Amino acid sequence: MRKLKNSELGRISVENFKTSKKTPIVVVLDNVRSALNVGSSFRTSDAFRIEKIYLCGITATPPNKEIRKSALGATESVKWEKVEDTESVIKKLKSEGYHICAIEQTENSIMLNDFSPAEKPIAVVFGHEVNGVQQSVVDLCNQSIEIPQIGTKHSLNISVSVGIVIWDLYKNIIG
Amino acid sequence: MRKLKNSELGRISVENFKTSKKTPIVVVLDNVRSALNVGSSFRTSDAFRIEKIYLCGITATPPNKEIRKSALGATESVKWEKVEDTESVIKKLKSEGYHICAIEQTENSIMLNDFSPAEKPIAVVFGHEVNGVQQSVVDLCNQSIEIPQIGTKHSLNISVSVGIVIWDLYKNIIG
Repeated sequence: MRKLKNSELGRISVENFKTSKKTPIVVVLDNVRSALNVGSSFRTSDAFRIEKIYLCGITATPPNKEIRKSALGATESVKWEKVEDTESVIKKLKSEGYHICAIEQTENSIMLNDFSPAEKPIAVVFGHEVNGVQQSVVDLCNQSIEIPQIGTKHSLNISVSVGIVIWDLYKNIIG
Repeated sequence: MRKLKNSELGRISVENFKTSKKTPIVVVLDNVRSALNVGSSFRTSDAFRIEKIYLCGITATPPNKEIRKSALGATESVKWEKVEDTESVIKKLKSEGYHICAIEQTENSIMLNDFSPAEKPIAVVFGHEVNGVQQSVVDLCNQSIEIPQIGTKHSLNISVSVGIVIWDLYKNIIG
């Protein structure tokens, strides 16, 4: 099984990315503390060609050394916007017809493996490394999704959660 | 949707983890450069209760400050072993009946969404951040699996790849 060279992977250019049809997913980062997690979210969002990332509250924005370290250039391709107040983004996305899902452990969470996306674009909201998505933001979401876990720790790394959730939704879309 | 407290998540203790039935997956890290990626792989492996992690070649081992930072204690629950030579682990796992999959882009890769695991325990092999899994190691594997990507970058962050692949295999197992 010969490994492929990077030049054989047929990746698209930044210019082609910008004009190409996107996967109907938007990522909202609600006060994410680590810039490395932000950069990794950019890289994952590039890989699955998602529409846009909203960087809310204290979430770091490009240009930033740590974002650059884990994004490896994906801040050039993926559209993003800095917003002070997460609630206002959720309300705006709702009015634009998005189905908003907080990635959180709540009383009413549906497990990711049981989740069937509606025929709507989806916004997925990820929160702070320790505190998670703010309760006031969760209250505005249509649904909460939980990644089922059977280990000793309470949660996964945010960049890993972003990867798992976006992959799972993308896989549903490509069938 | 009230958020759950950590105490409401019903996670198991390290002692219970050690004696509990594991998800039949083994992770092999072939010369992974970043200790943060190693720690994150531990945390993900804890979450899905995988059998064991093999840390091969230059891959950092606990105790290590950066592993601790991203593993957050998961090195206490997940079994691991340091091995100099990745090929020897692959041969050993093969003789023990594992189906060995390199996570790599090769001429013969099957896309992760098309992969149906056999009725065997699986070993998944992840490689170096820039160079990937060594060709000599790929040559010993039963199969190579690729995470399909439609962006501008050539690959995902390793800790994200570990998360996506383990989640996908775990989801298959829980049905």
